Amino acid sequence: MAFVTRQFVRSVSSSSTASASAKKIIIKHVTVIGGGLMGAGIAQVAAATGHTVMLVDQTEDILAKSRKGIEESLRKVAKKKFAENPKVIKTPMTSQKTVESLIDFSKALGKHPVSCKDTPGFIVNRLLVPYLMEAIRLHERGDASKEDIDTAMKLGAGYPMGPFELLDYVGLDTAKFIIDGWHEMDAKNPLFQPSPSLNKLVAENKIGKKTGEGYYKYK
Amino acid sequence: MAFVTRQFVRSVSSSSTASASAKKIIIKHVTVIGGGLMGAGIAQVAAATGHTVMLVDQTEDILAKSRKGIEESLRKVAKKKFAENPKVIKTPMTSQKTVESLIDFSKALGKHPVSCKDTPGFIVNRLLVPYLMEAIRLHERGDASKEDIDTAMKLGAGYPMGPFELLDYVGLDTAKFIIDGWHEMDAKNPLFQPSPSLNKLVAENKIGKKTGEGYYKYK
Repeated sequence: MAFVTRQFVRSVSSSSTASASAKKIIIKHVTVIGGGLMGAGIAQVAAATGHTVMLVDQTEDILAKSRKGIEESLRKVAKKKFAENPKVIKTPMTSQKTVESLIDFSKALGKHPVSCKDTPGFIVNRLLVPYLMEAIRLHERGDASKEDIDTAMKLGAGYPMGPFELLDYVGLDTAKFIIDGWHEMDAKNPLFQPSPSLNKLVAENKIGKKTGEGYYKYK
Repeated sequence: MAFVTRQFVRSVSSSSTASASAKKIIIKHVTVIGGGLMGAGIAQVAAATGHTVMLVDQTEDILAKSRKGIEESLRKVAKKKFAENPKVIKTPMTSQKTVESLIDFSKALGKHPVSCKDTPGFIVNRLLVPYLMEAIRLHERGDASKEDIDTAMKLGAGYPMGPFELLDYVGLDTAKFIIDGWHEMDAKNPLFQPSPSLNKLVAENKIGKKTGEGYYKYK
């Protein structure tokens, strides 16, 4: 396991080692661009699975923070379970060889990769965010309380969290950012309409668990 | 525990015992109208929790079939877990007293009741069916395979089943019936638009697990 960080300097060197004879590329060296929640997570998993990782970002401050978090996580790595599934997003410019190589790379990280075209929200967010917005609208119409909607979806559909619990967990600012972006792209789609209650809570900085209040209050 | 069935004779006698002094009604006698999947289930749980149950339906054949199923289930009742949550659906004609009495009754059945206005799909189906349709549309647009959508929702969102597995489990005929009904009520809502792949599978009687094929094939 090797792990280095480097400040972002615009040009990014190739991060893959190609084997001339093999059809697919075997990825040994990983460059992660952006040390936020996702980037740091990818860097951590790649490092934990024996890859050489270079993490790049705009400032030394961000890098130092990411590096600290990653190193702490790596110490706990034996106990940690990596459950999520990465997407391999295929644009019209992506070759089949690249897709297949990345699928192998994801599997080497102990993940279950899925493929998806380059569409807004890919798979999970494309299905989850409209569902969350529909739950908000059901509540805004006065059809049921948020507590009852959460209970119904957990007990009736077997979901691990109700939609309002999940919104507070993800952050209402994030949900609003996504839905506003989609609304801008496709203003007529009723699925992408803004929500008055979501906008009001975000305006009041009640954006969920991280500020102590969102659709619910937290101590 | 008492359990009787009776053929449906249009007039249905009162099934509740009112206590004159108490505000809420304590329900001891339960009349279930309709011996299908839901009615038989309600009758079974009510009987298992010490209520006197009368089940009414249009023919003796249906009643005999329901009765047989209920009696078999009651024999297994000690092992059985009742996990689902009933809804108490409040129309403009429903008094608060009735709602509260039914909430107590649901709790007496060992359930977690939730309240909802009389709106199409109530809570779970109102949120679940459009989400299932959006998953079908994501697949129909060619953005991702049904296998990858199912994997992503199970691993990425923690859902117990992927949308295509759930569709096959519920029955594509049922999903089509619901969405066609909503489309008829609100034809302009893009959430309620019919799906070509769903319609094709239903037309071919590939309606899910119960016929051995739906979005997936079953042995």
